[in-house]
Amino acid sequence: MTLLHTIALLGVAVFAISGALAAGRRHFDLLGVVVIALVTALVTATGGGTLRDILLDRHPVFWIKDTTYIYVSLIAALLTVVYARWRHPPARLILIADALGLALFSISGAQIAEHAGHGGIVAIIMGTLTGAAGGVLRDMMCAEVPLILRRGRIYATAAIVGIAIYLLLQLVIDRTLAALLGMACIAALRLGAIFWNWTLPVFSLPGDKDEQ
Amino acid sequence: MTLLHTIALLGVAVFAISGALAAGRRHFDLLGVVVIALVTALVTATGGGTLRDILLDRHPVFWIKDTTYIYVSLIAALLTVVYARWRHPPARLILIADALGLALFSISGAQIAEHAGHGGIVAIIMGTLTGAAGGVLRDMMCAEVPLILRRGRIYATAAIVGIAIYLLLQLVIDRTLAALLGMACIAALRLGAIFWNWTLPVFSLPGDKDEQ
Amino acid sequence: MTLLHTIALLGVAVFAISGALAAGRRHFDLLGVVVIALVTALVTATGGGTLRDILLDRHPVFWIKDTTYIYVSLIAALLTVVYARWRHPPARLILIADALGLALFSISGAQIAEHAGHGGIVAIIMGTLTGAAGGVLRDMMCAEVPLILRRGRIYATAAIVGIAIYLLLQLVIDRTLAALLGMACIAALRLGAIFWNWTLPVFSLPGDKDEQ
Repeated sequence: MTLLHTIALLGVAVFAISGALAAGRRHFDLLGVVVIALVTALVTATGGGTLRDILLDRHPVFWIKDTTYIYVSLIAALLTVVYARWRHPPARLILIADALGLALFSISGAQIAEHAGHGGIVAIIMGTLTGAAGGVLRDMMCAEVPLILRRGRIYATAAIVGIAIYLLLQLVIDRTLAALLGMACIAALRLGAIFWNWTLPVFSLPGDKDEQ
Repeated sequence: MTLLHTIALLGVAVFAISGALAAGRRHFDLLGVVVIALVTALVTATGGGTLRDILLDRHPVFWIKDTTYIYVSLIAALLTVVYARWRHPPARLILIADALGLALFSISGAQIAEHAGHGGIVAIIMGTLTGAAGGVLRDMMCAEVPLILRRGRIYATAAIVGIAIYLLLQLVIDRTLAALLGMACIAALRLGAIFWNWTLPVFSLPGDKDEQ
Repeated sequence: MTLLHTIALLGVAVFAISGALAAGRRHFDLLGVVVIALVTALVTATGGGTLRDILLDRHPVFWIKDTTYIYVSLIAALLTVVYARWRHPPARLILIADALGLALFSISGAQIAEHAGHGGIVAIIMGTLTGAAGGVLRDMMCAEVPLILRRGRIYATAAIVGIAIYLLLQLVIDRTLAALLGMACIAALRLGAIFWNWTLPVFSLPGDKDEQ
């Protein structure tokens, strides 16, 4: 479980960074904005895992059981705010931090669903929820269209594909290696979508032109 | 419980249809939109029941316990996407599917609250939540004003009235028959609101003209 | 626990008033708007406590265990609607009722987290969640930017400061008195923000002018 713990702490940290940046959008001059950045970072970092724990009836919820997660979120958010005031971060940093958070939490969410005795479709759904819910909450708090719902963009698809690859690979190779490959796959798909504008293929059927 | 199970599967299917249609809005040419339609359908179909199970501390949550619900949602959503590409569905189909989902889930939610030993006001609230929450999540995901909050429109009222009728009728007639009549009442009120634009009565008090 | 119970009932009532007013915005001529006002009031009044109970695995959830909370919410909302039709309430009444709800629920949420064996950071987070979540749900239902996220405005800060003061004071003075002082502090900070437009201080670092 140590690797899973490290991965969860890393996931919390990168999601906290994305939350703090999204809340602040480079203006951190008011103490109030710092408070909002910390609140948003905390919600982003813990949202997915909290939903997973409640759905799987795992109590106490992870951040109540181990408050390290809270402190890691707050410290990551605070460092982000300080850094963002000193030198403004590239606009894509939110998306990159989000991509890493998605990769880390999707696979760890799927693994926790497996630990709880579920597999296949439930592991895929629970992993996707764990990975995506924090970002959805962050985007809702910042009144943005959630990344998961932007058309043509690879988001849920990246999580679903990566988890499926992890589930298949672990049948033939070492579980830890399968998890790392699954994460790499999710991160690669999302980063490709961010940097090279990858989209999902258009498919058309006869008669498409008739509709609008 | 077999009738309750069938009703829940039907409810999941019709809500999945409404979710897939709302997410797609007739444009299903991108694979990414299909993924969003499946995700939205799944959230719409399972949202209300999940909230009910969590509030009533029923674990495992219904779709984790019985994955048939997931497959029914996904198949209903996929068939909807295929159909919508072949022949575009009438605009009101979302509302009709939603009306049936509301009817089926409101009564089954109330019944499950009763099974858990609650009655009266808790059954009404839990039934309304079970019926309405999936649609609220769908509308939030599609950035629409939730149906339940559109002014003058009969929505929550339909669920509340139908559940109250079911609770009263079952004191005098067969429970299954009472449930079917309650559902029929909710569906009739919503469909009336959709097709004949039924609204709730305006009532006025002396002095109304003074205010705006 | 009697004081805690009274405080929770009061909190439910004031949040129900803010929810009913926010849903109605002075137009209560349609029966449908009254239903929406009651639904919004109920969600506002019970949202924070429900989230707290689910996160802390306290079942049955408070309003399922004791339906008095439901009736108090509905009666408070109904009286608000009747009053608002008779004489339209000052625009700030929503904010004032919300400030009192925040004060009452933040401290009682923190106390319940303490009863459950948690302290420090978990009590602060749980208190803030309990106090703020109902208002966030209300604002989301009414398609407003949640109060907690309005820039520069003291909202989450008031809750956090008040809970911290309560946690510190109870080490040296009577617990009940500490709770009342914590509540007074939260209410005073929020009311100051509402009436005298208090905001949090701006702090600047060298180089601020370089950024935008």
